[in-house]
Amino acid sequence: MIKTDILIIGAGPTGLFAVFEAGLLKLKCHLIDALPQAGGQCAEIYPKKPIYDIPGFPEILAGDLVNNLMEQIKSFQPGFTLGERAETIKKLDDGTFVVITNKGTEHHAPIVAIAGGLGSFEPRKPLLHNLSKYEDNGVAYMIKDPEVYRNKRVVIAGGGDSALDWSIFLADVAAQVTLVHRRNEFRGALDSVEKVQELKNQGKLNLITPAEIIALNGEDILESVLIRKISDAKEELVLEVDHFIPLFGLSPKLGPIGDWGLEIEKNAIKVDTFDYQTNIPGIYAIGDVNTYPGKLKLILCGFHEATLMCQSAFQKIHPDKKYVMKYTTVGGVSGFDGTKKEAPKAVVKKIE
Amino acid sequence: MIKTDILIIGAGPTGLFAVFEAGLLKLKCHLIDALPQAGGQCAEIYPKKPIYDIPGFPEILAGDLVNNLMEQIKSFQPGFTLGERAETIKKLDDGTFVVITNKGTEHHAPIVAIAGGLGSFEPRKPLLHNLSKYEDNGVAYMIKDPEVYRNKRVVIAGGGDSALDWSIFLADVAAQVTLVHRRNEFRGALDSVEKVQELKNQGKLNLITPAEIIALNGEDILESVLIRKISDAKEELVLEVDHFIPLFGLSPKLGPIGDWGLEIEKNAIKVDTFDYQTNIPGIYAIGDVNTYPGKLKLILCGFHEATLMCQSAFQKIHPDKKYVMKYTTVGGVSGFDGTKKEAPKAVVKKIE
Ligand SMILES: Cc1cc2nc3c(=O)[nH]c(=O)nc-3n(C[C@H](O)[C@H](O)[C@H](O)COP(=O)(O)OP(=O)(O)OC[C@H]3O[C@@H](n4cnc5c(N)ncnc54)[C@H](O)[C@@H]3O)c2cc1C
Ligand SMILES: Cc1cc2nc3c(=O)[nH]c(=O)nc-3n(C[C@H](O)[C@H](O)[C@H](O)COP(=O)(O)OP(=O)(O)OC[C@H]3O[C@@H](n4cnc5c(N)ncnc54)[C@H](O)[C@@H]3O)c2cc1C
Repeated sequence: MIKTDILIIGAGPTGLFAVFEAGLLKLKCHLIDALPQAGGQCAEIYPKKPIYDIPGFPEILAGDLVNNLMEQIKSFQPGFTLGERAETIKKLDDGTFVVITNKGTEHHAPIVAIAGGLGSFEPRKPLLHNLSKYEDNGVAYMIKDPEVYRNKRVVIAGGGDSALDWSIFLADVAAQVTLVHRRNEFRGALDSVEKVQELKNQGKLNLITPAEIIALNGEDILESVLIRKISDAKEELVLEVDHFIPLFGLSPKLGPIGDWGLEIEKNAIKVDTFDYQTNIPGIYAIGDVNTYPGKLKLILCGFHEATLMCQSAFQKIHPDKKYVMKYTTVGGVSGFDGTKKEAPKAVVKKIE
Repeated sequence: MIKTDILIIGAGPTGLFAVFEAGLLKLKCHLIDALPQAGGQCAEIYPKKPIYDIPGFPEILAGDLVNNLMEQIKSFQPGFTLGERAETIKKLDDGTFVVITNKGTEHHAPIVAIAGGLGSFEPRKPLLHNLSKYEDNGVAYMIKDPEVYRNKRVVIAGGGDSALDWSIFLADVAAQVTLVHRRNEFRGALDSVEKVQELKNQGKLNLITPAEIIALNGEDILESVLIRKISDAKEELVLEVDHFIPLFGLSPKLGPIGDWGLEIEKNAIKVDTFDYQTNIPGIYAIGDVNTYPGKLKLILCGFHEATLMCQSAFQKIHPDKKYVMKYTTVGGVSGFDGTKKEAPKAVVKKIE
């Protein structure tokens, strides 16, 4: 059982920044995310695109914002349960919570902060009758650890940025990469499309288009896929592979959290703007996942909400303590790893 | 009469970021600040100190944050009335406002956003009977334009960062700089103290300590100051100067805004968290100057408040239009100067 002070569901920008604000209050955080990496929409949907409305950054790539946030929270040593979806919640008699993921990982905390954005990112799956048999036995919808594919034969399906970028990346890692797409045209960043063309010309990547994968075969684990060309001839070929990675996009679903007894309005969790607490005391909702009068689904709003939420969480965890806010500039930042950042002190010095 | 869409009182980080959010909604802003420069507390009190809790910046100097914000809002071409204090407000019959400063500058706008922080920064003045006679005639409490002092004889009084830093700066500009302080010890950044020591050693700066200025003389404009050494002898000397700049610190005062009929609680203006509007429709209060349940006087909170405020201001200015929020990443940023920032577009391209 993983134990922490604030259990954060969702490691998007809001959840990540909550770790920082909690850390200033000496509260520890653990984050659960369905994605294999932190960063939420920023990391999954548009890591290479610029955002212009993060205060203080005339322009910042979404992926860089996530990296900066990870750097900012590093010294508060957050824990992560990645690639798992928070599924059920239980309130114990002492008022604390146990949250269990779809893989059975248990988390225990006095405070739960839902920073679930538009929901848990779930892959769009191809319609293949025996697909589930091969899940985790050759079929994966997200790439958690690229090393799994070293010197393996991989077939990727899809025509967007993820399919292009992972084909490029794995061309250097895998024994063989085949990219299958229903159309001849790909949609993505110009340089990604051009790089794939180049890899294909150099024979480092097999491209089969327009085509689709219509069957999976293998005794216990995936051994081959059946590919059908989309043409008048409907030519079919069998490709021996170790891995099939359909990258048809992820779509967020509020999912199981919708059944936790929280007040929901327009697919979002209702909160009070005093502390962004839900109708269940001890459960907060911050960032895109919440709603209140005037709500805007913007990153900078999530930062504010996370900050006020942590103050309230502190009061719940330490009902006896009076917290006096100190500016970071004045008090510095004391990491849980023993590091301390602080402003250079003024001196009082004689000039003669 | 200066005309704008949103008249912002206070050019601290909150007021500055409001310009950006307003600009996204195609609303123009004009800012009034009592200080000679933008940036509020960040620029005036701690420009060279690091802030650690601006989301996405593990560390940023307060002065750099202000510079970044100025860069971020540049293309929305905000107007500035600096070095003047907003003094009176009048609501016209059509519901719009006229705000007049202590120097008589008139501003007209349908929306007023008070981003006044802890108040208008007012200088602490030395107790000298004829001080006011020389104000703007040789005596200044803030430096608006250093060029005014080129090749002039300047005496600065004070023992903190401002006195040190301006002495250093003006040593290169003025014909003569004399620094007078009641003590031998100065309080400031180590490198500033050391630099002043060095300039003194090189004869580029006169240092008179412990001493104080006890009288000002001159027909119409300042011609000389009387300096008394603080010692048993109480020796006095007359110094011929063109300028006397007492830098004894600035302290913020809510001041005239306190009499505008706004609901005040603990020296701050009460607002509704829906849109940060005050009890007077059309007047908003954002940043450190406002209060509501859960309020924290933090920069990141001001950013959120400014953003929600602008949405509400837009609805008031355009009651007929329905605004559909577009992410900056998706819609880009179209400056009023004709520039456009936007994310590189995805291509749809054949790979063969
Ligand atoms: C193309 C695009 C451009 C954008 N441009 C801008 C912009 O310019 N400015 C701006 O401010 N915003 C922009 N946004 C919106 C911005 O990305 C979101 O506001 C922000 O990501 C919300 O952050 P969050 O942390 O609240 O949620 P998210 O980023 O959505 O992260 C939530 C995380 O929670 C996880 N999760 C949810 N439920 C569960 C569960 N049950 N178990 C485990 N994990 C779960 C999800 O997998 C996800 O990773 C843009 C969005 C998109 C898609
Ligand atoms: C030493 C120090 C360290 C700090 N550290 C941090 C930190 O680490 N993190 C953090 O988030 N915050 C910190 N703060 C607080 C932070 O600086 C403030 O929250 C922030 O500056 C508030 O911004 P603002 O724009 O609302 O107001 P301000 O920065 O106070 O700006 C308000 C401006 O309005 C002007 N004004 C007011 N009334 C009038 C008027 N009638 N006419 C004309 N002009 C007027 C003032 O002159 C001023 O320039 C710190 C503050 C100090 C002093």
